[in-house]
Amino acid sequence: MKTLPFSKEDVLNWTKNHPTPFYVYDEAGLRKCVTDLYKAFSWNKGFCEYFAVKALPNPSILRLLKELGCGTDCASEPEIVLSVKSGITGKKIMFSSNETTVREYEVALKNGAIINLDDITHIEFLEKIAPLPETICCRYNPGKFRNTNDIMGHLYDSKFGMTYDQIKLAFKTLKEKGVKHFGIHAMLASCCLEEDYYPRLAEEIFALALEMKKDFDINVEFVDLSGGIGIPYKPGEQPVDIFKIGDEVRKVYERMVEDNGLEIAIFTEMGRYITGPYGYLITKAIHYKHIYKEYIGVDASCCDLMRPAMYGSYHHITVLGKENAEAAGKFDVVGSLCENNDKFAVDRKLPKVDIGDYLVIHDAGAHGHAMGYNYNGKLRCAEFLMHPDKSIKMIRRAQTMNDYFITLDIDEDFKR
Amino acid sequence: MKTLPFSKEDVLNWTKNHPTPFYVYDEAGLRKCVTDLYKAFSWNKGFCEYFAVKALPNPSILRLLKELGCGTDCASEPEIVLSVKSGITGKKIMFSSNETTVREYEVALKNGAIINLDDITHIEFLEKIAPLPETICCRYNPGKFRNTNDIMGHLYDSKFGMTYDQIKLAFKTLKEKGVKHFGIHAMLASCCLEEDYYPRLAEEIFALALEMKKDFDINVEFVDLSGGIGIPYKPGEQPVDIFKIGDEVRKVYERMVEDNGLEIAIFTEMGRYITGPYGYLITKAIHYKHIYKEYIGVDASCCDLMRPAMYGSYHHITVLGKENAEAAGKFDVVGSLCENNDKFAVDRKLPKVDIGDYLVIHDAGAHGHAMGYNYNGKLRCAEFLMHPDKSIKMIRRAQTMNDYFITLDIDEDFKR
Repeated sequence: MKTLPFSKEDVLNWTKNHPTPFYVYDEAGLRKCVTDLYKAFSWNKGFCEYFAVKALPNPSILRLLKELGCGTDCASEPEIVLSVKSGITGKKIMFSSNETTVREYEVALKNGAIINLDDITHIEFLEKIAPLPETICCRYNPGKFRNTNDIMGHLYDSKFGMTYDQIKLAFKTLKEKGVKHFGIHAMLASCCLEEDYYPRLAEEIFALALEMKKDFDINVEFVDLSGGIGIPYKPGEQPVDIFKIGDEVRKVYERMVEDNGLEIAIFTEMGRYITGPYGYLITKAIHYKHIYKEYIGVDASCCDLMRPAMYGSYHHITVLGKENAEAAGKFDVVGSLCENNDKFAVDRKLPKVDIGDYLVIHDAGAHGHAMGYNYNGKLRCAEFLMHPDKSIKMIRRAQTMNDYFITLDIDEDFKR
Repeated sequence: MKTLPFSKEDVLNWTKNHPTPFYVYDEAGLRKCVTDLYKAFSWNKGFCEYFAVKALPNPSILRLLKELGCGTDCASEPEIVLSVKSGITGKKIMFSSNETTVREYEVALKNGAIINLDDITHIEFLEKIAPLPETICCRYNPGKFRNTNDIMGHLYDSKFGMTYDQIKLAFKTLKEKGVKHFGIHAMLASCCLEEDYYPRLAEEIFALALEMKKDFDINVEFVDLSGGIGIPYKPGEQPVDIFKIGDEVRKVYERMVEDNGLEIAIFTEMGRYITGPYGYLITKAIHYKHIYKEYIGVDASCCDLMRPAMYGSYHHITVLGKENAEAAGKFDVVGSLCENNDKFAVDRKLPKVDIGDYLVIHDAGAHGHAMGYNYNGKLRCAEFLMHPDKSIKMIRRAQTMNDYFITLDIDEDFKR
C-alpha cells in the first residue's frame, strides 16, 4: 500500500488558501533520497549527482539539491539559466544535449559547463563555435545491452550516443586536438527497477575506459551512469535499494578500476529517482458520471500531468480520508480536456468517491508539472514545497490568462 | 504527392528575418476550405461552423473565421476570452465542455454562449449556479455506431455524452424546467475520411430529434454534427468531398426532417478539417547522425508538434528544393528533446538532406502549435499567417525565456 507524508487535514488546510489542482513536493522525502544516494556512493571520491532539470525545473528544488551537493544535467539555454540562477554553475552543470544548436553550445561553453557530446560530428560542430574546452564527455550507445527493460526501445532505435567505433575515434581525435580531461556517459535504460542495472552499466563503461587507457593513454576521469533508475509506480512494486546498488557498483569499481591503478569519479543524472516519489498532484472530484462506465471527473487534466495520456503510465491514486475504505467498483478518473485520453486512471478500483473529495495522484514529482501544456486553453497549476512541519510554500504560482496570452502581445486587435 | 502553397524561395525570404522553427498558415487555403464548407451546407437555413478553438487558438485565425461566418466551439475560460476578443460572441459560441467547473459555466453563461451539456448530472450542477438558459444543447453518446473508425476508441469507452435513456430524460426535464430551445450534439468519430460519416451521424441524431418531437413535443432547433471529419495526412489518402458530404446530409435531412414538417439548423464543430491542411511547421536540418540508423536532426522538437510523439501520427515532410529528388534512404527525423519519442518521422524515405536544408512538416495547422509544451525548457515558436501574395504576418511571437520563467516571479531568489 502506498502511503502519504501528509493527511487529509493538511490538505484541507492548504486548500483554504489555494485552489486545486496543485503540486506538492515533500522536502523531507527529497532530502532523504539525495542524502542516501550520496551515502551509497560515498566510497567514490568525486561522486556527484547531476540532477536532470527536465524532471522538475523549479529553482526552489534546484537550490535544495545544490545544498545537498548536486549539480544539474541541462539540455537547453533555459535549463542552464535555471541552474545558474539557482547557484549551480561551471562544471556542476553537465550539458547533455542532442541536436544541439550553435546558441545552446555557446551558452553552455560561456557558463563553463561540462559538454557531453552526443555524436562524433559534434566535435567539428563545436570547433566551429569556439576552441574545444579542456574537459569533454562523450555519450556511448553500445547498441546492445543485456537484459534491460524495453522502455527506451531497443538501443538500435535510440537516437542517442555514439557507437563503439565512433566513441573510440572521438576520444582519439579529441586528445589529438588538445582536450585534457575525459568522461564517458551512457543511458541504456529508463525507469529500471532492476538493481543490477547500474553495476552492469558501470562494468560496460569501465571496460571502455580501460581500453581508452590502453589504446590512447587517456585517463577517463569520470563516468556518468546517467539516469535510468526507476521508482515503484504501482503498489506491488518495490523501490530499489540504493545502498545495495552503490555497493555493487563499488565491487565492479574495485575490480576493474582500482585494481588497474586508476581513479574515476562516478556521476549520476537521476531525475525520476530523486523527485518522482516525492511529488503529488492534488485534485478535487467535481463530477460523477454514469454512462457505459463510471467516471470520476476531477479538476486536474492531462495538461497538468501528461504521462498517463502520453505513455499510458500508471499513477497511484489515493482518495483522502478513504485510505482504508473498500473498493466500490472500477472507475475512470478523468480530466476536462476534450480528448478521450485525458484519463488519470482507467478501470481503477477505488472506494466510493463523493463530489468534493480530494484525490492525490502519486509519484508525480518528475516529468509531471514539467510536461504541462495549455491545450484547450488549460492554465498550468501552482507548485508547493511541503516542509517537515507540513506547512507549504508556493514555489511556482499558477498561470493566469495574461500569462497564457502573453505571446499575443504583438496583436493590437486582441489587446483592445 | 503532397504539394505546398509556397516555394523554397519564399521560405528563404521569410527566414531572413525569422529564425526557424515557426508555423505558417495559408490564408487562401483556409478561406477556400471554409467557403466550400458553407457552400456545401448552403441548402440548410441556419448552418453554422463552430470552429474548435483548441485546434488553433489564435485570434488572427478566429477573426478570419468570423469574417467567413464561423462561430467557435470553446471548452474553457481562456478559449471563451479568445473568442470574444476576436469578435465571436453570444450564441456564436458553443460551450462544449466536460468535467466543467463552476467558474467555467459562469463565464459561458455571462457571455451568452450556447451550453452543451455533457452529462445529465450537469442540469442540477448548472441550476445551482444560475437559472437555466433558454437554449440548451445536450451531447449524445449512443454507445455504438456502425462502422466508424477506431481512433476515438469504442464509444463505450468514451467519457463524453449521455446515453439514449439519459438524453431523453434530460430533454424532458429541461423542458419541464422551462428551457425553450433545444439542440443535440454528437461526436462519434475522429479524423474520419469516410464520406458517409456525417450523413450517418445526421441520421442517428435526426431520429432522436423526431422522438423528442413525438414523445415530448420538443422541436429540436439545431443538430451539432461536431467534428470528426478527417484530412489526408498520408500522400496516398484522398481528401473528403465536402460537397458530396453536404449533399448526402441534405438527402437525409429532406427525408427525415423536411418530410416531417420540421426545420433544424445544422452545426459543425470542425477543427482539424478547417485548419489542419493549411498549417506548416518550417524547420531546419542542423545535424546529420549516422549510428545504427540514419538521423536528421532538426531545430524543431516534439514540443513544437506533439502528435507524432503522443499518437504516433504521420506528418508528411518535404525537403525544400528536393521535392522531386529520389529517396536516398530511410531516415529518422528527430528533434532535440531528451526523449527518444521526439521523432517527426521514423524510417521515412527522404532525399539526401544537407545541413541547412529547410524541411516542411505538413498538416500541422490543427492540434499543432496548440499542443506545444515547454519540456526540457524548450521555448514555443512563432506563428505566421501567409497572405495570397506569399508575404507573411506574425500572428504570435515566439516565447522568450522571460515568458517561460514568468510564473516564477514570486521567487525573489530566482529573480536576483
